[in-house]
Amino acid sequence: MTPLYEGKAKRLWATENPDTLRMEFKNDATAFNGEKKAQFEDKGRLNNEISTLIYGFLEEAGVPTHFVRKIDDTNVEVKKVTILMVEVIIRNISAGSYCKRTGTEEGKVFSQPIIEFSYKSDELGDPLINDDYIREMGLATPEDLAHLRASALKVNAILIDFFAKAGLKLVDFKLEFGRLVSDPSVIVLADEISPDGCRLWDLKTGEKMDKDRFRRDLGGVMEAYQEVLGRLKSNS
Amino acid sequence: MTPLYEGKAKRLWATENPDTLRMEFKNDATAFNGEKKAQFEDKGRLNNEISTLIYGFLEEAGVPTHFVRKIDDTNVEVKKVTILMVEVIIRNISAGSYCKRTGTEEGKVFSQPIIEFSYKSDELGDPLINDDYIREMGLATPEDLAHLRASALKVNAILIDFFAKAGLKLVDFKLEFGRLVSDPSVIVLADEISPDGCRLWDLKTGEKMDKDRFRRDLGGVMEAYQEVLGRLKSNS
Ligand SMILES: Nc1ncnc2c1ncn2[C@@H]1O[C@H](COP(=O)(O)OP(=O)(O)O)[C@@H](O)[C@H]1O
Ligand SMILES: Nc1ncnc2c1ncn2[C@@H]1O[C@H](COP(=O)(O)OP(=O)(O)O)[C@@H](O)[C@H]1O
Ligand SMILES: [Mg+2]
Ligand SMILES: [Mg+2]
Repeated sequence: MTPLYEGKAKRLWATENPDTLRMEFKNDATAFNGEKKAQFEDKGRLNNEISTLIYGFLEEAGVPTHFVRKIDDTNVEVKKVTILMVEVIIRNISAGSYCKRTGTEEGKVFSQPIIEFSYKSDELGDPLINDDYIREMGLATPEDLAHLRASALKVNAILIDFFAKAGLKLVDFKLEFGRLVSDPSVIVLADEISPDGCRLWDLKTGEKMDKDRFRRDLGGVMEAYQEVLGRLKSNS
Repeated sequence: MTPLYEGKAKRLWATENPDTLRMEFKNDATAFNGEKKAQFEDKGRLNNEISTLIYGFLEEAGVPTHFVRKIDDTNVEVKKVTILMVEVIIRNISAGSYCKRTGTEEGKVFSQPIIEFSYKSDELGDPLINDDYIREMGLATPEDLAHLRASALKVNAILIDFFAKAGLKLVDFKLEFGRLVSDPSVIVLADEISPDGCRLWDLKTGEKMDKDRFRRDLGGVMEAYQEVLGRLKSNS
């Protein structure tokens, strides 16, 4: 059998249900748009567990997601969606590309969250774009964007709290949304939420507990993911 | 005497009036954030004449600008402003960095103008930023941005027409705004509008009549600027 899609961190498989997919979390880690690569034992399982925990919590909080059920250690069943080619990044504290782009030091707490959109294109390096670009590229309508913004802010408010209870600061994170294949008028939160796509800092020590450990060769990558999972579990 | 400021294309000099400056247009041309440099005889004069013509026309159309009067071939007197560190780019047709960023071919006519903001920083390469970035960087308030957008769209509508009468398509252009030193509550259009910061294509032949001739080594740079000036003059 071959997957319907193999990405950098996951594979998508067909199920018996035409409206759902099996999403498999791989052990592959990539950074800098695929330039840096590695494999980490257990990464797939850890991200699947963390993401499943978070999507369950978000669903309970009234956020519509693609999540259906956990199948096993590295697999979930999700509603099949047409992914919007716009990635939504939410920033509470300056880090990463924001710092590089603006010349700001890491760690500045924003007065309000920053929301930004990037064009989901590995080839082009997921470039930052604005609402007018998105309209002219036909990636989403202004109404879609209003919905994405409101959703992203809601998810952010929920997750700030969720992570704070686990002694973690939610610095920034990336969301993907899609239209249900079974009803394209409905946009739901899709993909994953894990330390691969979030920056999480220990509330007390400031230690990085996310993929920046891999990006910056800080070591203890899976230990950090394991710690995140452990803390989230004991708080939910 | 030394200028108050020497930039890539102009010098600013004090005048007897503390509320105005003398802006001198140099013959220097730069591209790719200063990496490519050249001198063109008459460039200062041509840009001064073109810009003076345009600012006069905009003032008549009710757009507040920094323009006071032309002093001589390469000098104008302008109201002294505190420049907003946000450059406003207006795009009617895809070209330049829009194409590079989005993978779009040059020449796509947009359904509505695209407005984008970049952080005026040579060091950082004038990076694209969004409204949330601008708020958090303290570059302008949301109210300022609403004003810049409305102004930019008005200037665009006026100039599309103005250039069309001269047989030129206004593809895209960059504006700078500033607060009057004499009354910081007033934001006016500042800097210059010339083929250095506009893309202008011949309506019939599509020929480039702007700084892209220099960027792309197409030759006839000053001939094109001269042609633009000639056409604008005979139509106003
Ligand atoms: N519910 C879903 N239905 C369809 N596609 C999805 C869904 N959730 C996520 N996807 C897409 O599946 C892919 C997941 O694999 P990943 O390794 O993250 O790929 P990529 O390298 O493209 O980021 C992504 O392209 C993501 O947009
Ligand atoms: N009315 C004004 N008052 C003060 N500064 C101005 C005014 N109009 C333009 N400027 C600034 O003067 C400089 C013009 O010189 P230029 O060669 O374009 O500089 P740069 O290399 O910074 O773009 C710019 O930095 C511009 O922002
Ligand atoms: Mg992905
Ligand atoms: Mg300039």
